[in-house]
Amino acid sequence: MTIASIYEPIQEDLTKVEESIKAFCMADNYPLLAELLRYVLEGGGKRIRPALVLLAAKFYRYDLEKLIPMATAIEVFHNATLVHDDSIDKSLVRRGKPSVHKDWGESVALLLGDYLFAGSGDLVASTGNLRATRLFTRTIMEICSGQLKEFAGIYDWTRNQQDYFEQIKSKTAALFSTASESGAILSEAPEEAVEALRNYGRELGMAFQIIDDILDYIGDEKKMGKPTGCDLLQGTITLPAILFIESYPGDNPLKAVFEKKGDREEVQRFIEMVRNSFAVQECYSIAAGFTAQACRALEWLPENAAHRSLLDLADYIVERRT
Amino acid sequence: MTIASIYEPIQEDLTKVEESIKAFCMADNYPLLAELLRYVLEGGGKRIRPALVLLAAKFYRYDLEKLIPMATAIEVFHNATLVHDDSIDKSLVRRGKPSVHKDWGESVALLLGDYLFAGSGDLVASTGNLRATRLFTRTIMEICSGQLKEFAGIYDWTRNQQDYFEQIKSKTAALFSTASESGAILSEAPEEAVEALRNYGRELGMAFQIIDDILDYIGDEKKMGKPTGCDLLQGTITLPAILFIESYPGDNPLKAVFEKKGDREEVQRFIEMVRNSFAVQECYSIAAGFTAQACRALEWLPENAAHRSLLDLADYIVERRT
Repeated sequence: MTIASIYEPIQEDLTKVEESIKAFCMADNYPLLAELLRYVLEGGGKRIRPALVLLAAKFYRYDLEKLIPMATAIEVFHNATLVHDDSIDKSLVRRGKPSVHKDWGESVALLLGDYLFAGSGDLVASTGNLRATRLFTRTIMEICSGQLKEFAGIYDWTRNQQDYFEQIKSKTAALFSTASESGAILSEAPEEAVEALRNYGRELGMAFQIIDDILDYIGDEKKMGKPTGCDLLQGTITLPAILFIESYPGDNPLKAVFEKKGDREEVQRFIEMVRNSFAVQECYSIAAGFTAQACRALEWLPENAAHRSLLDLADYIVERRT
Repeated sequence: MTIASIYEPIQEDLTKVEESIKAFCMADNYPLLAELLRYVLEGGGKRIRPALVLLAAKFYRYDLEKLIPMATAIEVFHNATLVHDDSIDKSLVRRGKPSVHKDWGESVALLLGDYLFAGSGDLVASTGNLRATRLFTRTIMEICSGQLKEFAGIYDWTRNQQDYFEQIKSKTAALFSTASESGAILSEAPEEAVEALRNYGRELGMAFQIIDDILDYIGDEKKMGKPTGCDLLQGTITLPAILFIESYPGDNPLKAVFEKKGDREEVQRFIEMVRNSFAVQECYSIAAGFTAQACRALEWLPENAAHRSLLDLADYIVERRT
């Protein structure tokens, strides 16, 4: 199963989203801004979130005039968070290229992120749909609040599964959920379908983030276009480490690592231990549990090509290696 | 003339804006976020922008249910820009208190600013008025693009009046203009009145920023709650310096100052020269020219207490010392 086959029912329209992203990059006549926007937005990522908007809209009134700006907005916003997050995390590489703050400095990264935020809001408002607009703005607030909470909690070796799930719900699942829910809203789906697609997106997003966090332990740096082991180095403890630590109830091995903040060797040794433990496999099982929930949420919806794609997307997300 | 007397026709409703700001600070249940929001939003500033929203709405259908969230949004957004700007400029003090990045760090300032951005968008969307929402999101984009341009142009001693006016138009006048225009839109004013109030806000904002830039040269640090001379130290050349330099056509005295970036003594000497020159007075004349334009824009509007307040506000802005 390839991502291209999953996107098949919306492939043509995803091309239109790309065109819309291009147009967004050119909307302001200040050359440095256009350059930065193209650097960040063009040709990057798998476009899973805009695909979700489109696929979720395929069950009722599929109205491209509203869906294209919505899908563009979600992708633009997602990239705004990446630009700001990279700056906060001091991550130097993104999608195989230097991150914005690395090459242009933190102030430019801050201002570019702000422009992307504003632009995403403008795109959503341009759908003319107030419910989708409000859903989007509330989601941004939830994500920002969650990010602040995550930042305040770095180097906290007492973090448990509940903290983790709460955090990835706002960090990642909220935007996935808003992508699919907004597709449903804009296609004038009945409330049960809106709810089903909201739940699908949320559970899918949970699984997506868990896999992301697994890949930070076991991923191939070249294929992913970014270094691995970053989370722990930055003081962020994710599911693989949490599960691993739970098997040492009396003696948390992360405490010693975090007490030597930034010691690469200590972190590397801990990562090796997690990698060779049962924890990675257990993370995969938990992720599969979330995608199973996601697929169950779809049961209510009519059968069609988009339905099959959404089911396949759930499998793809657990199996992905980048 | 005091600001209280100018605000008289809307004083009661400004109190409601304060309550709405308080409610915004409490909306998220994460204690650190609530603390930060109150630190930044409560009891700070003269609330000129929300006052503009309310005064501009006093000519037609004055609908508080929409005006309060709109006025709150404009103030919340304004504070988002202050939090991010202080971080970029490394300004340590704001309204007599340590700036957010100073006490909590740059990452917190970035995330808090993002939350404020998102929250302002949500407040505007909650008016249910798409035209006002779109006006607001376009304005944020314009401001962010302008800020990026300003940042890219620091330490440019060739900056001229035209560059300066263009910059303050997006930096300050755009939000003033959107404040008064949105008040007009939400009160269902006829198009001519919307245009008149948009123009009033823009010209007022131009004057406001020129005075701000004068005060950075001649202001009383204690009364203003922030140090003076900051613009030049940060490499930003504003109208007083531009006018002063224009009188040295062959030999730009700022070149030498900017070549020694950050040299406090050199900057201080240059500031003294500007302060004792004709330039400050000329800046005042130019600011008065803008407020005269602002007042002319109002001619179209019916006479009432708000009309008089808007005229007085124009005078107040040129005469203000903080």
